[in-house]
Amino acid sequence: MSVMEMSHRGKEFLSIIQKAESDLRLLLHIPPDYSVLFLQGGATTQFAALPLNLCNPEDPVDYLVTGSWGDKAFKEAQKYCNPKVVWSGKAEKYTKVPSFDVLEQTPHAKYLHLCANETIHGVEFKDYPVPKNPNGVLIADMSSNFCSKPVDVSKFGVIYAGAQKNVGPSGVTIVIIRKDLIGNAQDVTPVMLDYKIHDENSSLYNTPPCFGIYMCGLVFDDLLAQGGLNEVEKKNQRKAKILYDAIDESRGFFRCPVEKSVRSLMNVPFTLEKAELEGEFIKEAAKEKMVQLKGHRSVGGMRASIYNAMPLAGVEKLVAFMKEFQARHA
Amino acid sequence: MSVMEMSHRGKEFLSIIQKAESDLRLLLHIPPDYSVLFLQGGATTQFAALPLNLCNPEDPVDYLVTGSWGDKAFKEAQKYCNPKVVWSGKAEKYTKVPSFDVLEQTPHAKYLHLCANETIHGVEFKDYPVPKNPNGVLIADMSSNFCSKPVDVSKFGVIYAGAQKNVGPSGVTIVIIRKDLIGNAQDVTPVMLDYKIHDENSSLYNTPPCFGIYMCGLVFDDLLAQGGLNEVEKKNQRKAKILYDAIDESRGFFRCPVEKSVRSLMNVPFTLEKAELEGEFIKEAAKEKMVQLKGHRSVGGMRASIYNAMPLAGVEKLVAFMKEFQARHA
Repeated sequence: MSVMEMSHRGKEFLSIIQKAESDLRLLLHIPPDYSVLFLQGGATTQFAALPLNLCNPEDPVDYLVTGSWGDKAFKEAQKYCNPKVVWSGKAEKYTKVPSFDVLEQTPHAKYLHLCANETIHGVEFKDYPVPKNPNGVLIADMSSNFCSKPVDVSKFGVIYAGAQKNVGPSGVTIVIIRKDLIGNAQDVTPVMLDYKIHDENSSLYNTPPCFGIYMCGLVFDDLLAQGGLNEVEKKNQRKAKILYDAIDESRGFFRCPVEKSVRSLMNVPFTLEKAELEGEFIKEAAKEKMVQLKGHRSVGGMRASIYNAMPLAGVEKLVAFMKEFQARHA
Repeated sequence: MSVMEMSHRGKEFLSIIQKAESDLRLLLHIPPDYSVLFLQGGATTQFAALPLNLCNPEDPVDYLVTGSWGDKAFKEAQKYCNPKVVWSGKAEKYTKVPSFDVLEQTPHAKYLHLCANETIHGVEFKDYPVPKNPNGVLIADMSSNFCSKPVDVSKFGVIYAGAQKNVGPSGVTIVIIRKDLIGNAQDVTPVMLDYKIHDENSSLYNTPPCFGIYMCGLVFDDLLAQGGLNEVEKKNQRKAKILYDAIDESRGFFRCPVEKSVRSLMNVPFTLEKAELEGEFIKEAAKEKMVQLKGHRSVGGMRASIYNAMPLAGVEKLVAFMKEFQARHA
C-alpha cells in the first residue's frame, strides 16, 4: 500500500509522521517546550494564523519588512490586529536589513515578525534582533531558508516555513511554536488555522498532506545523514561564495545589488551592466539546461536559486557559463 | 525536471493545471459560468470559507445534517453567520436523508448546505433538494463521492471536495463555484480563504500543491478514458450491489443500518448480529490482506470503503470472505 492510500489514522502513517517530527527535532535541536505542526496552505495561510492565534484585534505587533514576503505578512495582519512596520527596506529597494540597535520596537507588542530570507530580493538575516515585547516573541518566516543552516530555535516564539524550497514538495507547511503561545485564538479563527486544534490532534485533525509529509521525512533523514545542518550550511556557503565571487570579480559586468553582509545563501539576484544582454543570457543558459534563471517579474534581471538540493556542480556550471558569456560580450 | 521541482509559474506547470481543469470540466460538464479552484486545507477549510465568502455575520443559512461531516460544517459556520439545522438525522443515528417536500427552509437564507455522502454513516443523497433561498444556492460537500457518478453542476452554487477519496492524494481541495457568488468575502477572511483571490489568480496566488494537482489531472484523464462518469457510476453501482446484497441476504448475520434508498455507493457500514465476532472478522480479513475494514471509532462495527479505485475483484473477494466467515460462524 502506498502512503497515498493509507489511512492517516493507521499505525503505518503514524510512524511516518512521528519519525518526520523526531528527525526534524534532532536536526534543529528543537526544545521540548516547542510543538511541531505539519499543516497546509503555505506561509500565506500563516500570515493570517499568526495574528489570529497570538493577538486580540486591538493588540500592537511589530513587523520588519525586508522584501515582498515580509510586506505581505504585514498586510494580512492588518485584518486581525494592529501591526506596525518598525523598519522597511523598500526605499533602498530591499537590499539591507536594519541595524538592530536602532530598532524602535513597540513596548507592548505581542510579537516581532521578520522574513528570514527574502526570495525575490535575496536578502537574508545572518543573526536576529532580540524581541523587546513582554513575552519575548520573535517570529520568523523561514520558508526559503528552512533547514539550510542551523538555527537556535529557543530565540523564537514561532518559526514557520512552506516545505517546498528545501525540505519537500509544495503543500506542506511546518510550524514550530513555543507551547505557551498556543490556545488563545480569536473567536473568528477558522478551525484549520487554530494552532490548538492541530497541537491537540498531533497534526491529524483532518486528513493531512500525507505524501508531502512522507517526503519531508525522507529529506530530514537525508539531512541528518549528511551530518546535520552544520554540514549543510558549509555546502550552501561554498555554493553561494563561488557565485557571489564570480559576480564581484566581473568588474561590473555582473552586479548584485544586495549589501554584502546580508546576501542570501539561497537566492542570488544579479543584473547585467548591459541590461540589453539579459534576454540573451537567459536564452543561452537554457540551451545549456540551466533554467528558471529569470528574476522575479517585480525586479527583473536574473536570479539563481541554489537551495539545498542544488549541487555544487550546478553552481560551478553556472559560474563557468557566466565567465564564458562575459568573455564573449565584454 | 519533476513536477515537484518546477516553478508553479512556469509554462510546464501551467499546462498541467490547465489540462486538469479542462478535463474536470469535461467530466462533470461544468458550465462556463462556474469557476474551478484547486486549493488546500481539505473540506474542513471550506467549512469556514463558505460562510466567510457568501454571508455577512447576521445572515441566515440552512444546513441539512445527515452525519458527522454535515454537523462539523454547521458548527464551523456558527463563527461567521447565523446557521440553522433545518433537518438532522442524529436522532435516528444518521441512517436517512430528509423528505425534501417537508423541509422548512429559511426564506432569506444565503444558502442551503448538505454533505452529499457521509463517510462514517454511509448515507448518500441520490437526488437533491431545490434551494428555496433568494439566490437559489445549494452547496454540497462532495469530498467522498466526487467523480464517482455524474452530477448536474448547474443545480449547485458551490460543490467542494477534498481530493483524497476518488481523485488524487490528500492535500488538494477542489471548489466549483458559480461566478456570481465570488467577490463578497467578509473583512476577516484570510486571503487564502478568499475565493476571489484564487479565482483572479487561477489557483496560483501562492505555491499550490503541484504534485497533488498533477496526480488529480492523471486521474481525470483516466476517468475520461474509462468512458466518463456514467461508466464510472455503473462500476460503482455493481460493486456496491454485490456487497449490499451479501449483507441483505445473510439472514441477519450481517446488518447495514442505513435506509436502502440512500445507501452509499462509496462507504458500506455493517455490523455483525453477534457483535463479539467483529474483532475476529477484522483480524481474519486482514490475514487475507483486506485492511481498513474497521468502522469509524464513533460508530463501531465494520466499514468497507469502495471508492473508484477499488476494483470489482476487491469487493468480490470481500463478499466471498463474508460468506465463508458466515458459514463457519452461523
